[in-house]
Amino acid sequence: MTTGVRRRMGVEERRQQLIAVALELFSHRSPDEVSIDEIATAAGISRPLVYHYFPGKLSLYEAALRKAAEDLAERFREPREGPLGARLLRVMGRFFDFVDEHGPGFSALMRGGPAVGSSATNALIDSVRQAAYEQILAHLDIRVPSARLELVVRSWVSLAESTALLWLDGRQVPRAELELQLVHDFGALTAVSAAYDDEMAAILRRVLATEPPEGPFGDLVERLVTLVPSPR
Amino acid sequence: MTTGVRRRMGVEERRQQLIAVALELFSHRSPDEVSIDEIATAAGISRPLVYHYFPGKLSLYEAALRKAAEDLAERFREPREGPLGARLLRVMGRFFDFVDEHGPGFSALMRGGPAVGSSATNALIDSVRQAAYEQILAHLDIRVPSARLELVVRSWVSLAESTALLWLDGRQVPRAELELQLVHDFGALTAVSAAYDDEMAAILRRVLATEPPEGPFGDLVERLVTLVPSPR
Repeated sequence: MTTGVRRRMGVEERRQQLIAVALELFSHRSPDEVSIDEIATAAGISRPLVYHYFPGKLSLYEAALRKAAEDLAERFREPREGPLGARLLRVMGRFFDFVDEHGPGFSALMRGGPAVGSSATNALIDSVRQAAYEQILAHLDIRVPSARLELVVRSWVSLAESTALLWLDGRQVPRAELELQLVHDFGALTAVSAAYDDEMAAILRRVLATEPPEGPFGDLVERLVTLVPSPR
Repeated sequence: MTTGVRRRMGVEERRQQLIAVALELFSHRSPDEVSIDEIATAAGISRPLVYHYFPGKLSLYEAALRKAAEDLAERFREPREGPLGARLLRVMGRFFDFVDEHGPGFSALMRGGPAVGSSATNALIDSVRQAAYEQILAHLDIRVPSARLELVVRSWVSLAESTALLWLDGRQVPRAELELQLVHDFGALTAVSAAYDDEMAAILRRVLATEPPEGPFGDLVERLVTLVPSPR
């Protein structure tokens, strides 16, 4: 069933190889369209041997997704140095790299549906959202967020998801523009909340104090001042 | 099995009654937790009679969801009169009414999962998103949106969804504040896009030209001017 060379692969090594092969296939097409036969062929092993490692397509899909989720959560990590705008822009660059690499699989997963919408997959999606949320809070140097800050950060994470999904659907706006736009959106959502809440206003002032004029937030403020007529 | 009074209900009337009863139950608990027996009891009919009208729980769930989706899409309708900010605020009020009325069912549906994540339910969710998107475009008096405008409006619709879901999870921020915040968020996302795109800038200027100083957008601009130091 397997060659001598293949048989020398250890159990964990073989599992990891299958997960990597499956992730590659699940990234480029909807999971519905990927068969165990295809995964077996791509891994160079027999169909029964795939079942030896994974009881079925769903468990292999979930293992591949776990790997992708860990990878994505990792991309939100960023040294806590320098202005926040530039940090967020680097994070968005890595986020769009991920979305680009896993496009069709990312769309299928986030849009839900019978093949992908299990409670295990939803828990994995939530774990990435949570990791992204915690990273942003860490960059803001805040350990115990207010309900308003939590709402701003979590809804921005969700905005990043939906923007990426809309981008994948036709790629009509260049991704570099969207990466920058999402950084600006973070500033804008924070500013809206800050306009009506003193605690949020203090956070916004602290962030803007360290932003250079030519950074994403400085540039946005300057453009908006020109664009929107002052009420006074 | 049924009383004389009940037997006089016509087929369509009975179907509608079952849908209304099911929607009420599915709104207040996760669909997983609602049984056909419970629906039958609430409707005052036998379990076999429920199956006479609907082949199973999923088809009844989908019918209830269709009714809810039509209702929600309807709430995005708003006369095209007066300033945009005030219109959007009325729409957000009706949207949060809906979310409030259907809380646990709305959460379960939007979070996906085995009982609710079918392709039929996803299509219904998308139909509401599309209706909301088209309503907003109509309020902006735009028939053929640019890719950037489409992105702003669709991502704002998704922001309204995620904000409502976060609100349901503990209701820590008063809903009236979030309704207003989402109107402001619409202005903010539009402004971010307008800062880097002439077509979006023209739309923003046109909207702001008809906004009164005391309206949601006028008030936000005035507060932000005070809050954010001008770069010049």
